[in-house]
Amino acid sequence: MLDANSTRIVVGRGELERGAEVLGDWLHGRTVFVVSSPRVRALHGGRLRWLDRVAARRHDLEVPEGEAAKTVAVAEGLWNRMLEVGGKRDSRLLAFGGGSVGDLGGFVAGSFLRGIEFAQLPTTLLAQVDAALGGKTGVDLAGGKNTVGVFHHPFAVLSDVEVLSTLPPAELRSGLVEVVKMAFLLDLDLLARVERDLPALLAGEASALLPVVQAAADAKMAVVRDDPREGDRRRLLNFGHTLGHALEAALGYRTLRHGEAVAYGMLFALRLAERRGLDGAAADRLRQLLAAFELPPLPGGGRLVARDLVRRMGRDKKAVEAGLVWVLPAALGAGQCVADVSPREVEAELAAFLAAGSRG
Amino acid sequence: MLDANSTRIVVGRGELERGAEVLGDWLHGRTVFVVSSPRVRALHGGRLRWLDRVAARRHDLEVPEGEAAKTVAVAEGLWNRMLEVGGKRDSRLLAFGGGSVGDLGGFVAGSFLRGIEFAQLPTTLLAQVDAALGGKTGVDLAGGKNTVGVFHHPFAVLSDVEVLSTLPPAELRSGLVEVVKMAFLLDLDLLARVERDLPALLAGEASALLPVVQAAADAKMAVVRDDPREGDRRRLLNFGHTLGHALEAALGYRTLRHGEAVAYGMLFALRLAERRGLDGAAADRLRQLLAAFELPPLPGGGRLVARDLVRRMGRDKKAVEAGLVWVLPAALGAGQCVADVSPREVEAELAAFLAAGSRG
Repeated sequence: MLDANSTRIVVGRGELERGAEVLGDWLHGRTVFVVSSPRVRALHGGRLRWLDRVAARRHDLEVPEGEAAKTVAVAEGLWNRMLEVGGKRDSRLLAFGGGSVGDLGGFVAGSFLRGIEFAQLPTTLLAQVDAALGGKTGVDLAGGKNTVGVFHHPFAVLSDVEVLSTLPPAELRSGLVEVVKMAFLLDLDLLARVERDLPALLAGEASALLPVVQAAADAKMAVVRDDPREGDRRRLLNFGHTLGHALEAALGYRTLRHGEAVAYGMLFALRLAERRGLDGAAADRLRQLLAAFELPPLPGGGRLVARDLVRRMGRDKKAVEAGLVWVLPAALGAGQCVADVSPREVEAELAAFLAAGSRG
Repeated sequence: MLDANSTRIVVGRGELERGAEVLGDWLHGRTVFVVSSPRVRALHGGRLRWLDRVAARRHDLEVPEGEAAKTVAVAEGLWNRMLEVGGKRDSRLLAFGGGSVGDLGGFVAGSFLRGIEFAQLPTTLLAQVDAALGGKTGVDLAGGKNTVGVFHHPFAVLSDVEVLSTLPPAELRSGLVEVVKMAFLLDLDLLARVERDLPALLAGEASALLPVVQAAADAKMAVVRDDPREGDRRRLLNFGHTLGHALEAALGYRTLRHGEAVAYGMLFALRLAERRGLDGAAADRLRQLLAAFELPPLPGGGRLVARDLVRRMGRDKKAVEAGLVWVLPAALGAGQCVADVSPREVEAELAAFLAAGSRG
């Protein structure tokens, strides 16, 4: 079983076409399963032509676009197909697509014959800076996202920033939110770079994205290597996610993209953090940066209710019997895990946050 | 994540009623899921009354008897139920039953919220000496047994030999085959004890079973701790399983119990081993012991065909691209992994083995 330290992370331009350099030996003579969606195959499938040269057998497994791929039923379909065509313990799997394909593909690999090795070939910014890194895999149940899964570290993550140019602007924005999340707590140089290059980043320019994806991946992997099974250190990566997940769930995983929900989650966490002594200037710096993202507004008309959101947070898979742990900024470049935020305080702050038109 | 070294193994009489001694602190104040079958609950459920005293909440999850429990659909049903009733990352799961309940329960625990801790409370001899030990978990696909699963080590394995008295003789025999499998390659004192006490063991006498279960568990855990992810050392535990699995599959998992199929697998492996220099006296000692088991005969009438069985072995999940690895005795108390047995040799030997009325 590979661990976080053995994952090779490669970020560059044209990495997918050059994939044989990193993956060739590992795939040589193997049965290789490529999990992907119709859109990714149509747009970028040609970049993996070298695979036919190195693999003994190649099987393309198509899954639905987006979160619809992340079900137990889809996973079972892949396991059955892999077994039928002769998948073995030393077969390989490539998860070629966005975060959903990576989450599903990693889980399928991690549980097929008790685990085969796999690699992540992420094609969205969100997946390149966050989802594909760190070994978290999983699918969803009706009751919650990522509620079934395993830790299964990829052999390699190949992030080719050239594929990001085909992403819609909202998808780039969603990915950049995760970059900001890490930068604000972990890497102030990266934060300054995002502030400076924001227009080019939101436009999907590869030259601007390359150093940002590299730095974000470095920041995340440093945390993961320190704390592979999610103690307090890794938990810092959940900044903005406690409310973010509840917002997504309350809106039925429509209306807001994951990154957009996390952005609102960070804005809300700033309020709790300021009550615990976070410097107002630091909080304002993050508010100003996120304002430039021009987030879609939170739906009004009573669709979001503080009490309901608090209840949903209690059901979050990160919750333990003792309650929720909040990740709050303590200062610029420093986060902390806070366990003693009462549901009453959260509900009152959240009601005020929602009433303020969610501008924080 | 627990590893093989952190699993506490307790073998004794009345261990289930005294379960709070080993599990009390670990379960205290938690939500506890008890996965079990109707039969086990009816026969032995009363032994876990102490659980209501130590757990914050207890949820009994009933699954079908035997292999029918080991499906992705049953696993998904448990995950959904666990999430609905508020299962958290620090919830616990007890797999209370035979090997199937343990395999399923371990997989469900290993994948719920990316892994919650669990304990094995095995109620069959097979589970106490083999299935519950070592962290292998999984469910079946239509194409093969244990083809979906993870390695997930239990916090503890509590083996109470008193529950074995309710087992039918054939079930005891099936479990004893796994003991013989380990004893012949790993522990000659245990082999001698089984030879000496066989009638009492087959009668389910707790005083005879206690030292045998203890020694078998020790032998298995020593191998697992040496080699947790199944390299050559752990592979020794698959002695008899290559043909055994193929026999079970060819007979549709009816007709022969797992241990019975493994016994035939060992008898067949002896033939391959003797062609590679295994001493005839050593082989005869194992043949003589297994003869005393009075195995049900292999079905005749052409139901088993050598070529078909060879094809099934190639699909075994332990196969790799390069082919099958056979576990063969090299001498009394010593096994070896042999990769260069040609399918042609296997098929010819197997045809002779089947023709000989499977008496080896």
